[in-house]
Amino acid sequence: MSRPMSDPAPHLVRVLKGERSERPPVWFMRQAGRYLPEYRALRAQAPDFVSFCLNPEMAAEATLQPMRRFPFSAAIVFADILLIPQALGQQVRFEAGEGPRLGALPSVEAMRERTEGAGEALSAVGETLSRVRAALEPDRALIGFAGAPWTVMTYMLDGEAREDRAMARRHAYEQPETVDALLEVMVEATAHYLAMQARAGAQALQLFESWAEGLSDELFRRLVIEPHRKLVARVRELGVDVPLIGFPRGCGALAEDYAAAVPVDAVALDTAQPLALGRRIQQGRTIQGALDPVLLRAGGPELDRRVEAYLEAWGQGPYVFNLGHGIFPDTPIAHVEQVLARVTGERP
Amino acid sequence: MSRPMSDPAPHLVRVLKGERSERPPVWFMRQAGRYLPEYRALRAQAPDFVSFCLNPEMAAEATLQPMRRFPFSAAIVFADILLIPQALGQQVRFEAGEGPRLGALPSVEAMRERTEGAGEALSAVGETLSRVRAALEPDRALIGFAGAPWTVMTYMLDGEAREDRAMARRHAYEQPETVDALLEVMVEATAHYLAMQARAGAQALQLFESWAEGLSDELFRRLVIEPHRKLVARVRELGVDVPLIGFPRGCGALAEDYAAAVPVDAVALDTAQPLALGRRIQQGRTIQGALDPVLLRAGGPELDRRVEAYLEAWGQGPYVFNLGHGIFPDTPIAHVEQVLARVTGERP
Repeated sequence: MSRPMSDPAPHLVRVLKGERSERPPVWFMRQAGRYLPEYRALRAQAPDFVSFCLNPEMAAEATLQPMRRFPFSAAIVFADILLIPQALGQQVRFEAGEGPRLGALPSVEAMRERTEGAGEALSAVGETLSRVRAALEPDRALIGFAGAPWTVMTYMLDGEAREDRAMARRHAYEQPETVDALLEVMVEATAHYLAMQARAGAQALQLFESWAEGLSDELFRRLVIEPHRKLVARVRELGVDVPLIGFPRGCGALAEDYAAAVPVDAVALDTAQPLALGRRIQQGRTIQGALDPVLLRAGGPELDRRVEAYLEAWGQGPYVFNLGHGIFPDTPIAHVEQVLARVTGERP
Repeated sequence: MSRPMSDPAPHLVRVLKGERSERPPVWFMRQAGRYLPEYRALRAQAPDFVSFCLNPEMAAEATLQPMRRFPFSAAIVFADILLIPQALGQQVRFEAGEGPRLGALPSVEAMRERTEGAGEALSAVGETLSRVRAALEPDRALIGFAGAPWTVMTYMLDGEAREDRAMARRHAYEQPETVDALLEVMVEATAHYLAMQARAGAQALQLFESWAEGLSDELFRRLVIEPHRKLVARVRELGVDVPLIGFPRGCGALAEDYAAAVPVDAVALDTAQPLALGRRIQQGRTIQGALDPVLLRAGGPELDRRVEAYLEAWGQGPYVFNLGHGIFPDTPIAHVEQVLARVTGERP
């Protein structure tokens, strides 16, 4: 388990590859975001959210902001899971306080023609990654990411974020051929997008399957497991050798099926995944998660207790400390400091 | 497994008590509801939803409507999980198209004084049950129900149905004493409410924990498992001997912990619970569920295939066929007929 002194890989990367460490590396989903006053000030300078994501100077600054404040082990590139539909020719707008609205879905054929160029179309994200990598200390990792095919498709098919995400799966039942064809398009486009990010400096890549909730085992296999397997294989074919993290959020009892079937390097767990389940997955894989951001927001001694519970239960195996869901915008910064002090063992 | 010819208990009740049968009994969550034109006509006659629920004549009619159309094995009393706050002195209004809005939360002391009288305060529901029991064939069971303490509290504490139910658990972190005191009040009031329903003719009782999603194992134990254990014990103390069904919706990998810890007669499973997990719980308990109502709404050969998958995987053990979540209002009646024909083995 001890590493040669010459291994230059950042802590996070080594742990994602299966190395155990006395203290887990740590980063937070949405660590670059609205809970930071400097983020809000920066965001106010951009005309809209998509322009903000695609402006490398601004996006790099947003990515680096939490790294200046906190001892996070990794930065995650500031971007959005809905940049892919944009690259495939479907318009995306973010209305203030309303969530995303998407334009008409292009034909599968039209989108298929754009899959190979998806990385190039989003080269602004690559530029952001290069800038961040140049500015970041070598022992801190840089993470790239994409939305997983099914999750992004729920937005593409519905045109907007519906309150009841469960209804998105009606498409899988009602127009199976379209859904299966679209899944293939998404796998291919996402693979090229992730490969571009790795070339631009991402040292790990996370796949966000944010809407894996409520799927039967059969549908989970069809919409999540199989596309993730294909995507991992395709990303490797394209020459990507950085570790991959899969995050099937809300998949409940199916997390172990996911871990068994999808050859990602690490499985990220959501707030509802029990400590015992994490330990079982950890027998063969690095795990990441799963502190409740609602508890992070609440703070107090209960927060300390739960952080200790994760460190004790999961700290023995390869483990990346993280939240089980993105940080809430009204989270006090002092609570983030409180958790990081405990995880890193250093006073803030 | 064969029963004496003299056993007068309805099919559903026998299976809830662990009997296996060649064909499972079947009922659907929200089988009395808006997908039925006769329901919509009846509902239009009541000034508001709470009055509708508390009008025994109307509520009995709503309960019986699906029983006239379909070969369901059981009726479930038409009522709402938010009648309990009403009985405890918190005002509840249902705004058309908006979901419930609750008035100011009374003090815990004020509510505690009303727990014992909660059944009496909702005697209209008892009257509905008596009417339905008198009208229903003896081999078809009558089910009563209540919302589980935590689920009902999420509405009581927030005052309205928030889009993001996850935030309800902030109360458990931020005001633990209030939440724990309120849980006790809810256990006691719900026990009296359920006991009243059993006395009025309910032959089985279901506990709806509709918001068990996203809870860590620790929080699930505190907000769901422990209150359910206490509630089951208290209901038994009050002399109730009908079978109890627990439905911890969205609890994912924690379903097995629930089944192991809570002595309900049957565990209802949601759409995301895998066939294999159901079979494991079935070793010691009756299970109920878990057809996806999104698939029921979609219909087609895929619906038949999935019904067969449940019958094949779960039909060997004690099993009640049901949905994994309530039926959607825009579900075609022909799809309900299609499923029932397959489950009962009779053409519609």
